[in-house]
Amino acid sequence: MSPPREPLPSSMKAVRLHAYDGKPGSICVEDTPVERPGPGQVTVRVAAAPINPSDIMFIRGRYGLTKPLPAIPGFEGAGIVVSAGPDLYGRWLLGKRVACGTQPEGGGTWAEYVTTSTRLCMPLPKRVSDEEGAMTLANPVTAIALLHEAKSRGHRAAVHTAAAGALGRILYRIASKSGYPVIHIVRREEQVRLLRELGNEIVLNESSPDFLERLKEESQRLGATIAFDPIGGPSTGQLVDAMPKGSQIVVYGALSLEDARIDPKKLIFEDKQIEGFWFSDWMEKKGPLRTISCIRRALKGAGKEWATEVAQRVPLDHVQEAIVRYEKDMSRGKVLFVPSSSTS
Amino acid sequence: MSPPREPLPSSMKAVRLHAYDGKPGSICVEDTPVERPGPGQVTVRVAAAPINPSDIMFIRGRYGLTKPLPAIPGFEGAGIVVSAGPDLYGRWLLGKRVACGTQPEGGGTWAEYVTTSTRLCMPLPKRVSDEEGAMTLANPVTAIALLHEAKSRGHRAAVHTAAAGALGRILYRIASKSGYPVIHIVRREEQVRLLRELGNEIVLNESSPDFLERLKEESQRLGATIAFDPIGGPSTGQLVDAMPKGSQIVVYGALSLEDARIDPKKLIFEDKQIEGFWFSDWMEKKGPLRTISCIRRALKGAGKEWATEVAQRVPLDHVQEAIVRYEKDMSRGKVLFVPSSSTS
Repeated sequence: MSPPREPLPSSMKAVRLHAYDGKPGSICVEDTPVERPGPGQVTVRVAAAPINPSDIMFIRGRYGLTKPLPAIPGFEGAGIVVSAGPDLYGRWLLGKRVACGTQPEGGGTWAEYVTTSTRLCMPLPKRVSDEEGAMTLANPVTAIALLHEAKSRGHRAAVHTAAAGALGRILYRIASKSGYPVIHIVRREEQVRLLRELGNEIVLNESSPDFLERLKEESQRLGATIAFDPIGGPSTGQLVDAMPKGSQIVVYGALSLEDARIDPKKLIFEDKQIEGFWFSDWMEKKGPLRTISCIRRALKGAGKEWATEVAQRVPLDHVQEAIVRYEKDMSRGKVLFVPSSSTS
Repeated sequence: MSPPREPLPSSMKAVRLHAYDGKPGSICVEDTPVERPGPGQVTVRVAAAPINPSDIMFIRGRYGLTKPLPAIPGFEGAGIVVSAGPDLYGRWLLGKRVACGTQPEGGGTWAEYVTTSTRLCMPLPKRVSDEEGAMTLANPVTAIALLHEAKSRGHRAAVHTAAAGALGRILYRIASKSGYPVIHIVRREEQVRLLRELGNEIVLNESSPDFLERLKEESQRLGATIAFDPIGGPSTGQLVDAMPKGSQIVVYGALSLEDARIDPKKLIFEDKQIEGFWFSDWMEKKGPLRTISCIRRALKGAGKEWATEVAQRVPLDHVQEAIVRYEKDMSRGKVLFVPSSSTS
């Protein structure tokens, strides 16, 4: 039974960005009009929306896209579909709880309402909470997409850095469950312990003196010839140095905010390649069927195979402190905006 | 009419490397046994053998292969085949002038004699001198292979750095003749003038204040989505920054001796890739037919479309000074060893 239809207000509270400079003063909460859904669109009343590394990059103007200012940030969230355009699928979604991504040219999820394409909405099974649903795209689906790439390109095993982060822990569980060997790299001994609690996979601590030697041995032994790296900087260079001949290093984030330093000889004489991975591009290249199958897999595991730890739930008004807190320690757990709880 | 058969001496003068440390004292000329040709091999009396960037890397232990010490350096040369193993092709080569490369496990060309595989020998047309012939593999054939890669991968145009060097000038002539658009990058204004004398192609000076802007514009305009870079270091990073979305940056040398600094965001959001190119690997992957066709093309142009400038001809005994001189200014012209002139 679907919940009763609710009227769409004309204005809402939303986080708005006024400059891509990363300064706290450039971001604030304002009253702004609620966009009406056009053809192929729905409007979602946002129940939860996380802060992800991609949001931090977006705010600083370091992401792959910018929007006209003032812009509402937030690339993913979850909530109830409260209004729909004239299409059948949109009308079918009315009243349903969905996980949703945002359109490049539209508003973001750090708001009471977000209007987006029906193609970016996926109904949530009862078992999956709004909060888990809100964190489906950036982490679980990306982890699934990365492992899909490793397998479909024929690599016998893979390497993953930043393995103790939210995405890293999910990737750990998924790889472990499917029996696909992954070497997980973390920075601190406590993170080694944290991952060991999740399963019996190979975890290397890059602060150990024998780290590079171990990475060489293990990647050679397992045939790990692809690496996924969200860090950049020295991390990428280490992978290029230590992995076997013919390896591909796939960079999908720039957490270190530093340039990668690459020894050209490793590219020339060891036939190694470096490339980027951007989930938006990937979805477009692979098409909707592959994307939907990844999202289904993510929803299947959400709250069951993994539960993303939430460090803090904050109303929209606390956006500035929330960003500071999240940036301080990204691996401590997610910071979630819960817009409706501040209004209802 | 083939020249009369000559006896193969039991010993010869050869440059020998005693440590991969790049110190002048680790390299000297010594009497050493002449290796007899086995099955599939011939022995060439070396008339000329150049110093190439790859030799400098080899001496320093920075090349893709090392040989047991003491080792004779020199990856290419030319001369007369004076002895052959039992095969028909080897016997047919007897008395012929050939350009030759060396085997990974064998001796080098910086010697009075070199014994190598018949598959690495190519008879020289009368028109091509020993000296031009000796400089066929490392520069002209590589230039041809790079342009082949650019075209066969479907790029509409290419970018080449270090364009005023020996390989760069040959690549300029070949690209210009075939009408394939290449943006040639040099470091100094005098090099711009030098290349402009060779044809009417686009030459950019990376010391100009508007260099990156021009590179962006021109590569966009021409659809230059592949770059070949023998420099490494900052050069590679500039290419990654300035070239169009989806570009491939192919590093085939490390002249700068510096790590490349790469902005991860350019890989992620602009779908750019970095890879290496090593001629030895390339030959193996492409097979003998493609390699022979590149060598034929190189011999066709040698001394006609281009004439490699020789800065100095030196006997083997001068190896230490020769290396110093070559390293001082690689774009000034080749330094060639002429082993026989010191003995006959």
